Amino acid sequence: MNVDGVAYRSIWVNADGWSIDIIDQTRLPHVFAINNLTTLAQACAAIRDMQVRGAPLIGAMAAYGFYLGMREDPSTAGMQLAYQRLYETRPTAINLRWALERLNSALREIEPNERTARAFAEAEKIVALDIEINRAIGTHGLELIREIAASKVPGEAVNILTHCNAGWLATVDWGTATAPIYLAHDAGIAVHVWVDETRPRNQGASLTAWELGHHGVPHSLIVDNLGGHLMQHGMVDLCLVGSDRTTRNGDVCNKIGTYLKALAAKDNKVPFYVCLPSTTIDWNCSDGIREIPIEQRDGREVSEISGKLASGKVTTVSIAPDATAVANYAFDVTPARLVSGLITERGIFGASEKSLAQAFAKQNSRQPE
Amino acid sequence: MNVDGVAYRSIWVNADGWSIDIIDQTRLPHVFAINNLTTLAQACAAIRDMQVRGAPLIGAMAAYGFYLGMREDPSTAGMQLAYQRLYETRPTAINLRWALERLNSALREIEPNERTARAFAEAEKIVALDIEINRAIGTHGLELIREIAASKVPGEAVNILTHCNAGWLATVDWGTATAPIYLAHDAGIAVHVWVDETRPRNQGASLTAWELGHHGVPHSLIVDNLGGHLMQHGMVDLCLVGSDRTTRNGDVCNKIGTYLKALAAKDNKVPFYVCLPSTTIDWNCSDGIREIPIEQRDGREVSEISGKLASGKVTTVSIAPDATAVANYAFDVTPARLVSGLITERGIFGASEKSLAQAFAKQNSRQPE
Repeated sequence: MNVDGVAYRSIWVNADGWSIDIIDQTRLPHVFAINNLTTLAQACAAIRDMQVRGAPLIGAMAAYGFYLGMREDPSTAGMQLAYQRLYETRPTAINLRWALERLNSALREIEPNERTARAFAEAEKIVALDIEINRAIGTHGLELIREIAASKVPGEAVNILTHCNAGWLATVDWGTATAPIYLAHDAGIAVHVWVDETRPRNQGASLTAWELGHHGVPHSLIVDNLGGHLMQHGMVDLCLVGSDRTTRNGDVCNKIGTYLKALAAKDNKVPFYVCLPSTTIDWNCSDGIREIPIEQRDGREVSEISGKLASGKVTTVSIAPDATAVANYAFDVTPARLVSGLITERGIFGASEKSLAQAFAKQNSRQPE
Repeated sequence: MNVDGVAYRSIWVNADGWSIDIIDQTRLPHVFAINNLTTLAQACAAIRDMQVRGAPLIGAMAAYGFYLGMREDPSTAGMQLAYQRLYETRPTAINLRWALERLNSALREIEPNERTARAFAEAEKIVALDIEINRAIGTHGLELIREIAASKVPGEAVNILTHCNAGWLATVDWGTATAPIYLAHDAGIAVHVWVDETRPRNQGASLTAWELGHHGVPHSLIVDNLGGHLMQHGMVDLCLVGSDRTTRNGDVCNKIGTYLKALAAKDNKVPFYVCLPSTTIDWNCSDGIREIPIEQRDGREVSEISGKLASGKVTTVSIAPDATAVANYAFDVTPARLVSGLITERGIFGASEKSLAQAFAKQNSRQPE
């Protein structure tokens, strides 16, 4: 999407034709910095240090990282090293592993001197597929926004609430939850986005507000506490969120706090849709609340916060009494009964086992074809 | 309550027997500073700058401020000046006006040379009444905690979630939502409190965590997004919150985000009780969502945050892109249907017009007797 009128992706091949550029997301929203990566070690650091984050983008970074590894050592030992080093950066990231397996399969049987070019080509395919999937999600979601817009006084904005960053910065382009929003905005439909700041890591304030602002989409930053009040007062027409993992019956595991917004949407008859690539449906899981383990993270994510001083310097401050105990769970599960529908690259489906099984009759694993 | 073993109130008469001491709450949780007030102007500044906050404490501060004003000028002109100056500090604070009216009535008909002593006596009565009311709320709420504790394995803590600061720092002592918790803890019942940080002003992280910690009550600081997940997993036994204003049918206006917790409590069959002095029931209001205007505050409360640097210095940092639009509503309304009961100084009552009318048959105004 655009950054002040210039089209960007979150990861791309440098003008030199071989090295890889990324936006350093750890520095947003205060500094827009592009890092140039030329080595496997740099690619690993980019994932580990969360310069790139978001499942689809991590997958793309892993693929390009594997390619950079092949430039350094295309032997079978070099392949093993690249796989291992990249895998260790964030071992729980599903897309990371999927991308590495895909590269491994493609390169295993070919000659070492062909591996660099093939790795590059595979990485480009992964990137193209991600863009295509997100754009398709956007196209389907756009129809929902069009319908709401048609029921409004002309010019009156469709108010969309989103949580966390399921934006283009989490993918290669478009985002998942933001794809319908960008397509609607670009099509001239008036939209306004309520951006949950998304404590504790503040991805809404740092990333979603940044990307919407730079693309020119009207939005307001809000605390996570506010959405219920807005919905009570008719100020939200639609909720669009992403999903880290969706069970085969439509339970949605997403950033902590998503469940509270879904409850408020239900209580106020606001449609609540989840945008996801169908590859994140976990066909082996049927009860999200009981079966999905929820990661607990460092309490300092809650008790400390990073921000910009008046001088422009970015620093970290403590916002709680010293030594306060903190509980910090990263995700929650929204039961399918609260989900109006799942917007996938193949269309919009009901959040139920029957609906998903019909839609994806031939797909029974988490891996894309 | 205790601060590291020493009993404190949020406001008290200095050892000199006449001047007034307060805890400067703007410096919590990083610095525990006591300010000594000797003039009307200092009392006004303490309210205006939010060194003291919370409706009951503001009332007490206003009463002592009026008394300090009488020391300076006990004439009728002096009374008018004290009233006016104090009233202007926070004109929308109900308890502020109530305290000033009470002092005005008591002093109007007596001789100027008797006014200082009388103002002091009235202020002491207001303080004593507040403590008595909160302790009574605590006594009633304690029974709920006792019942839950009785259903637990001995030693297993009763988990209580609270939002914002309805603690002793918001009153003279005990607090409203915290009064049952302190009484339970002091009675040897194992309790553990989930403390919502309460964005945007972070009263939970700054004040509730501080006061519970210094009194020795086990607690964990959490982001406002987490409560739903905890309730889904049986980790919350009881929600206790305060109320800024309660309608005659039991709708509860309280800090923004309270409604979302009430929805989660209902969805997971967790009892959700509201602690309030009956003086905050608004008998003229019957539909909280439609009738109660919700204050919008400065967006910088959301986009900036105050905290402590590693050096120990307290500073403010910006956490959003520059010039991001912010919407910042301070309160929301929890409909009576989500409230398990109202814990008042007179007992626990259902959140309904019938129940409240029966309980408070003789009381039909917001003013206490």
